[in-house]
Amino acid sequence: MCGIVGVMGRAPVNQTIYDSLLLLQHRGQDAAGIATAHEQFFNMFKAKGLVRDVFRTRNMRSLPGNSGVGQVRYPTAGSSDNEDEAQPFYVNAPFGITFVHNGNLTNWRSLREELFRIDRRHINTNSDSEVLLNVFAHELQSAASGANLDDDAVFAAVSVVHRRAKGAYAVIAQIASFGMVAFRDPHGIRPLCLGRQETENGTEWMLASESVALTGCGFSFVRDVDPGEAIIIDLDGQVRSRQCADNPSLTSCLFEYVYFARPDSLMDGVSVYQARLRMGEYLADNVARALRLGDIDVVMPIPDSSRPSAMQLAARLDLNYREGFIKNRYIGRTFIMPGQAVRKKSVRQKLSAIDMEFRGKNVLLIDDSIVRGTTSRQIVDMAREAGANKVFFASAAPPVRFPNVYGIDMPTQAELIATGRSIDQIADEIGADGLVFQHLEDLERSVRDLNPAMTQFEASCFDGKYVTGDIDAQYLAELSRSRGA
Amino acid sequence: MCGIVGVMGRAPVNQTIYDSLLLLQHRGQDAAGIATAHEQFFNMFKAKGLVRDVFRTRNMRSLPGNSGVGQVRYPTAGSSDNEDEAQPFYVNAPFGITFVHNGNLTNWRSLREELFRIDRRHINTNSDSEVLLNVFAHELQSAASGANLDDDAVFAAVSVVHRRAKGAYAVIAQIASFGMVAFRDPHGIRPLCLGRQETENGTEWMLASESVALTGCGFSFVRDVDPGEAIIIDLDGQVRSRQCADNPSLTSCLFEYVYFARPDSLMDGVSVYQARLRMGEYLADNVARALRLGDIDVVMPIPDSSRPSAMQLAARLDLNYREGFIKNRYIGRTFIMPGQAVRKKSVRQKLSAIDMEFRGKNVLLIDDSIVRGTTSRQIVDMAREAGANKVFFASAAPPVRFPNVYGIDMPTQAELIATGRSIDQIADEIGADGLVFQHLEDLERSVRDLNPAMTQFEASCFDGKYVTGDIDAQYLAELSRSRGA
Amino acid sequence: MCGIVGVMGRAPVNQTIYDSLLLLQHRGQDAAGIATAHEQFFNMFKAKGLVRDVFRTRNMRSLPGNSGVGQVRYPTAGSSDNEDEAQPFYVNAPFGITFVHNGNLTNWRSLREELFRIDRRHINTNSDSEVLLNVFAHELQSAASGANLDDDAVFAAVSVVHRRAKGAYAVIAQIASFGMVAFRDPHGIRPLCLGRQETENGTEWMLASESVALTGCGFSFVRDVDPGEAIIIDLDGQVRSRQCADNPSLTSCLFEYVYFARPDSLMDGVSVYQARLRMGEYLADNVARALRLGDIDVVMPIPDSSRPSAMQLAARLDLNYREGFIKNRYIGRTFIMPGQAVRKKSVRQKLSAIDMEFRGKNVLLIDDSIVRGTTSRQIVDMAREAGANKVFFASAAPPVRFPNVYGIDMPTQAELIATGRSIDQIADEIGADGLVFQHLEDLERSVRDLNPAMTQFEASCFDGKYVTGDIDAQYLAELSRSRGA
Amino acid sequence: MCGIVGVMGRAPVNQTIYDSLLLLQHRGQDAAGIATAHEQFFNMFKAKGLVRDVFRTRNMRSLPGNSGVGQVRYPTAGSSDNEDEAQPFYVNAPFGITFVHNGNLTNWRSLREELFRIDRRHINTNSDSEVLLNVFAHELQSAASGANLDDDAVFAAVSVVHRRAKGAYAVIAQIASFGMVAFRDPHGIRPLCLGRQETENGTEWMLASESVALTGCGFSFVRDVDPGEAIIIDLDGQVRSRQCADNPSLTSCLFEYVYFARPDSLMDGVSVYQARLRMGEYLADNVARALRLGDIDVVMPIPDSSRPSAMQLAARLDLNYREGFIKNRYIGRTFIMPGQAVRKKSVRQKLSAIDMEFRGKNVLLIDDSIVRGTTSRQIVDMAREAGANKVFFASAAPPVRFPNVYGIDMPTQAELIATGRSIDQIADEIGADGLVFQHLEDLERSVRDLNPAMTQFEASCFDGKYVTGDIDAQYLAELSRSRGA
Repeated sequence: MCGIVGVMGRAPVNQTIYDSLLLLQHRGQDAAGIATAHEQFFNMFKAKGLVRDVFRTRNMRSLPGNSGVGQVRYPTAGSSDNEDEAQPFYVNAPFGITFVHNGNLTNWRSLREELFRIDRRHINTNSDSEVLLNVFAHELQSAASGANLDDDAVFAAVSVVHRRAKGAYAVIAQIASFGMVAFRDPHGIRPLCLGRQETENGTEWMLASESVALTGCGFSFVRDVDPGEAIIIDLDGQVRSRQCADNPSLTSCLFEYVYFARPDSLMDGVSVYQARLRMGEYLADNVARALRLGDIDVVMPIPDSSRPSAMQLAARLDLNYREGFIKNRYIGRTFIMPGQAVRKKSVRQKLSAIDMEFRGKNVLLIDDSIVRGTTSRQIVDMAREAGANKVFFASAAPPVRFPNVYGIDMPTQAELIATGRSIDQIADEIGADGLVFQHLEDLERSVRDLNPAMTQFEASCFDGKYVTGDIDAQYLAELSRSRGA
Repeated sequence: MCGIVGVMGRAPVNQTIYDSLLLLQHRGQDAAGIATAHEQFFNMFKAKGLVRDVFRTRNMRSLPGNSGVGQVRYPTAGSSDNEDEAQPFYVNAPFGITFVHNGNLTNWRSLREELFRIDRRHINTNSDSEVLLNVFAHELQSAASGANLDDDAVFAAVSVVHRRAKGAYAVIAQIASFGMVAFRDPHGIRPLCLGRQETENGTEWMLASESVALTGCGFSFVRDVDPGEAIIIDLDGQVRSRQCADNPSLTSCLFEYVYFARPDSLMDGVSVYQARLRMGEYLADNVARALRLGDIDVVMPIPDSSRPSAMQLAARLDLNYREGFIKNRYIGRTFIMPGQAVRKKSVRQKLSAIDMEFRGKNVLLIDDSIVRGTTSRQIVDMAREAGANKVFFASAAPPVRFPNVYGIDMPTQAELIATGRSIDQIADEIGADGLVFQHLEDLERSVRDLNPAMTQFEASCFDGKYVTGDIDAQYLAELSRSRGA
Repeated sequence: MCGIVGVMGRAPVNQTIYDSLLLLQHRGQDAAGIATAHEQFFNMFKAKGLVRDVFRTRNMRSLPGNSGVGQVRYPTAGSSDNEDEAQPFYVNAPFGITFVHNGNLTNWRSLREELFRIDRRHINTNSDSEVLLNVFAHELQSAASGANLDDDAVFAAVSVVHRRAKGAYAVIAQIASFGMVAFRDPHGIRPLCLGRQETENGTEWMLASESVALTGCGFSFVRDVDPGEAIIIDLDGQVRSRQCADNPSLTSCLFEYVYFARPDSLMDGVSVYQARLRMGEYLADNVARALRLGDIDVVMPIPDSSRPSAMQLAARLDLNYREGFIKNRYIGRTFIMPGQAVRKKSVRQKLSAIDMEFRGKNVLLIDDSIVRGTTSRQIVDMAREAGANKVFFASAAPPVRFPNVYGIDMPTQAELIATGRSIDQIADEIGADGLVFQHLEDLERSVRDLNPAMTQFEASCFDGKYVTGDIDAQYLAELSRSRGA
Repeated sequence: MCGIVGVMGRAPVNQTIYDSLLLLQHRGQDAAGIATAHEQFFNMFKAKGLVRDVFRTRNMRSLPGNSGVGQVRYPTAGSSDNEDEAQPFYVNAPFGITFVHNGNLTNWRSLREELFRIDRRHINTNSDSEVLLNVFAHELQSAASGANLDDDAVFAAVSVVHRRAKGAYAVIAQIASFGMVAFRDPHGIRPLCLGRQETENGTEWMLASESVALTGCGFSFVRDVDPGEAIIIDLDGQVRSRQCADNPSLTSCLFEYVYFARPDSLMDGVSVYQARLRMGEYLADNVARALRLGDIDVVMPIPDSSRPSAMQLAARLDLNYREGFIKNRYIGRTFIMPGQAVRKKSVRQKLSAIDMEFRGKNVLLIDDSIVRGTTSRQIVDMAREAGANKVFFASAAPPVRFPNVYGIDMPTQAELIATGRSIDQIADEIGADGLVFQHLEDLERSVRDLNPAMTQFEASCFDGKYVTGDIDAQYLAELSRSRGA
């Protein structure tokens, strides 16, 4: 997962993009970058690390210009440790384009080969984003061939991108001396929204992965970008849009609501916070069916993302709600000294337990999801060491059984605790006295209740159904093999 | 405020000290440092910044040794921006001493002059900690003069330090080829505790400002260091202690419980978490007297430190408890570009509001304390913008009316919102429809209920009573003047 | 001026390119960069600074691959302080090309406009080298359109580059998955030569600005690249070449021999060292005509570049030769402290005088050339302060009267001491008791004696004749204006 | 060897000290540091590396003050890679002292033990300089005990230092709020001189290892510091001196004149340049006796330090003088890539040969000295590869047969080529057709001719006589053992 942002401003935008990347930092802590446009030149700086560590005053001073794009990167499948793969990406032909991308192309390997063989474009990294940029660049060159660079050419290029590219992509690009263009894949798997702000110098526009980046920077939310749609914002701040996909259909990624997005974001018409409250309600009903409520003395969230669900679940079941785990705000590293063995990272560096909330009690712990299960097991252990009598566990999401190929970095199927295990076996594995998962239909309902127009979701990690139609057993086997390497 | 730690281990301690400093990072984010002892040499590294930014692999490799001390620094009154003032401090005569300190000396200026005039010791910074180290060093030289360096000499030196130094100090020092000594001022204003861990190589000891550093690193809590007491841990891991003050009396700083300490710490026999629950209870009674409960739809904490108080208050008053404010985990900087004006830091970069929890509701916001009032005012504004109908505010601590001279960096009296204002006037200033403060006796009771032995507290910022007896109007006036410079 | 190198090796080339850039460092101290080709990817690192400061172990590790190009940059007219303008440059379409350039295009502004308007290529810097790369890239795309990428396409592209580009250029480029191509402008203004080395893994090739880079790295000199010629070295180490210019004619830059090149280089068939000896001989004859030899007690070089000329001049005139000036090997910076005025750089930081060699003597100082004259004046002053009786001065080059537009960074005409001054007036300006310049025909003869095939030279800074035919008064006026800005 | 400097100025001295360290950089390239005194505080910055790399603008800004000391370090026997061992050193008791030292104590191990056992001073490094500082500090404390800190106390402390310390030391120290003191060991083995400069704000003083630091910074040379003498410069710029040794006798290190010092320095009344000319003359006579002059076509120096000797030798023997070796100005590193073997450093990276000066000729190469012989062998090889017929070699110094214990880093005896070899055998080893060494008496005469007061010299590496009287076979054996470790 990554976070992207683009600003067409009326004054220097470097600080605004920096601030918005901080607000999107939860979407990727691996690398960060900004490219601004100033007069006819692009300025760019990107590096590995957190936003606050990447950008120093000298870098910010090297980023003049009233428009720009930025990205925070989360390492996805296939990405290396390579600093060169940080975004934005740049190509100079045609026209000069800087480009940020959130998502993952599923057919990037074959596209890369096509680009080289037919389009004669060299791709210098293993990043699917560089491939996507070059597909767009090539199509823009074709579309503008023998004609002017105008809206029609840009929209035409996006249309062909939609036909050539498979997978998930939300994109913001700057075209030199032209403006900004943003588009979202025909299924709208990854989010993208538009905001505006009136300033004394005129109207400013921001495009971002989540609405919290808009509102946190003083912009007001205007609307989500539609699946398949492209939006052009020219250098005069004029906004034009067009549907560029043949059969767009909103198929938002469910995991954004479960875990990834910030609770204070509004995404495809749904408040993430409200969706999580709903998840708590539906999960409550499921808990009531699966466990004896009289056995439960207290409900506790695993901070921070499961807090709304846990609080709502406790309220609905009329159970005590307490916060027995304290999250450590400051995280450090384990240094490898010469001659030392690698120490295992422990959840204890991230959480600590308040004994008095556990001692002698039966606790129901709520987490947003269970993936590998290793963290869950350590947390259950911590609860017992803190004196808990019985430890029950509930997950606001269904069991994760399949890999994600649309930009969320999941372990291989073999590493998923739910692979080949019944719920009782999972409970055994994590050491819980009882375990309850959300049902997938309830999870979908949690979101759809808030926006009935959302009839389908990208829920492949729960049900193994891949909406782009190009993922088969062989693809997954190869993915697994490449991850094992 | 600062956090200090010392470890007498059986294996290299650099990683353990690093981990413990992360657990104490909330006590100081300004600078960090570690000094280890290896064979007859000290190794030291310190710099400005967060622990995770200060220490790189190469620094850690330069810190071999089985014992060491560390510190995280919070800038206190008089401290400059100077990297040289980061701790640990070192003097080579007598014996070689490295030294970390939490607290603030109130008579450091006169001590510094004495050191120069009589003891011929040069103090190269404006740090009161360097002064305290040199007083200790001088007295140790005197005490060991014509005799061996032994426990008696060390305890004698601490006794004279207690007579010469005024103020608050918890100290951990390493004496080369001798071991470690820790002591706490005769009033025990700043906390210090001892832990142990059995390893395959033998017993290891840790001294730290808060018990969370012990338990988070796998040590078990043994006991608090007594006010006035000194503890020696020699290089063989033998522990000896002696009371070195004439009239020690425990007078813990109340603000540690209100705000500073981590909730999962145990401090002078009191669980900080439990103390905060109690504060919520007493505050609840006060709220019930001051406001009409029927007017309140929902109780909300200002995350993170007021969460236990708010939750308990809501439970006691049988009011709804919700979390309407989301704390931003990632904080950045405001860059000053050439020709730009400085932008005001806003609480909006740190918090955002979930509209649906506010819309049309009367909310009671709970914070741990109100100091300048500027943050409170912005938070009240945010609640209203999010749609709140009425906004009430309650503080788990009484009004702050006096400066702190014992190591907590408070604004000058003129900047305190409670200076010269009634509670109604403060409510007006922050824009609240109602405002309730904790009573000082209730705050003290919140702590004393959990340890009846605590008969008195350092509560000067609430009541203006300074336990060290050397703070008068002139002192405060000079302090205010120096801060204004 | 810049130095460029390319290596097609049989083992990793990063260290070899690093070593060769050190040997070319005298050609540019402003920035350095390397791009290697490894499997299908390019790896690149470049930054401002000296070679030894730019490349650290981590950078070198990021440069795997058995072939690569490198550059050291001297800031030429129009270049900014911008790190982005360091070389190599890269374009990804067509094919992927990395590119290094020594020289200066005189028509880069109009080419840039054409590239944007017609070829739709965005140039993101003010570097003429980026323009030249894009002209080449565009022509390569055209030449390979509808056909394979083969030698014919590459040679065809170079041919069109020769027609479109005006000025001086020696270029080495890597084309991904194809190999390396090097070419030199039709006048051969900037040097370029080829070397080879037999290794246990096969033959390795190196292209470099000066032969010293070849021989210093263990390669043997094979030949100079001809003016207008292009040389392809494919990934199998096969070398093929073709003349790509319509009317090539060797017109080497005279200043290379006077000052720029290292004495141990062989350049277009001429030993630079021997050429400087010759300059000393011809200058000797001129000195004998202009000064009374009996007045001269001792001949001294201004170290290091005039040493061979001075030594030979002294020998021919049977005068004493001494080294009275010692060159400081270590050069530092002048720091601007707040509130301080800028201090003038003094030649005294670079040279110091041995008094005993000057005291009471009449000295003849030999320098390679006189440009602004400020250094010469300071040196004459130093000689007098060291006790010299009379101070004569001779320049191994004629008066510099015109700007250089082919890659040597000269001051504007107004700043040249020879502009509008007779030789006597120049002598007055620098404070010399006598001044002798080389005649241009003698300077040309110094080189031609060693390679009679060199019938003409690029000597525009002496005679104002610009061989590319596109430099007129208006061009020079605009250049002067842009430099003044 | 190291270079030291101290400035008592009338304006900020950081730039002046920086410039003077550059002028002394040839004395040590390993580390550099500056400590300034500003108001009552010292400011210090030191790090490994060259002066130009160590000090950045931010470091210079952290060094305010009108007086200061600086050092460039050459790693001597026993010094580690430790950054903490860079100078200046600092102790805070008594008074606050910063300290720079050139030389080497031979009894530092026993002094360190005494300091710990009796004086209770901890030495935190393996640097003899830290030991020397602490001896001085301890004696200053004793001398000023029960009295004021005045000249008498300082001179008394230096007197005791002379009695306790054995070896070579030139020292400059700052005492806080008092001023600067400089002293030289009773044999004056290491150089130290005094200069002054009149400014509009008053007189400024500089102390430095070599006069070139004075004159290069605009100061004029006043005089050398006498062996055993101490000079105080107080904060008002008043200078007072006293002889503090019982039996001082000037015994300058001969190697300073042979190789170490800059030719433009004046040292103990002798111009280094003139001394080298003399060395050339005496060596000429020796060459005339040992070789057939008719066999020699040309004399060549190995640049840079042997140039004066070679030039004078050629003149005296009426032989041709040419410079056939070119010194590379830019030196880099050899990077160790994973899986690669270490490559041997070659002299070819530092020198290259001009073939035409060697081809078919019999050459006499002149070097300042021969130590290990490995470089000499490579140079002889290079001459032969460049086409030389016969290669003769002459050394301006006698064979080096013993280690140096006074601050010059020599290899162990076993590594010296002259150990156990006759001159013919050495010639064989280095591949020369003839080899001539200077005689020790001629070398001494070369210096004494210019200052007849110099009756004896520190020449232990040639004759094995150690003037401090504490070096016996056991000492050398232990030294050899410790170096082998």
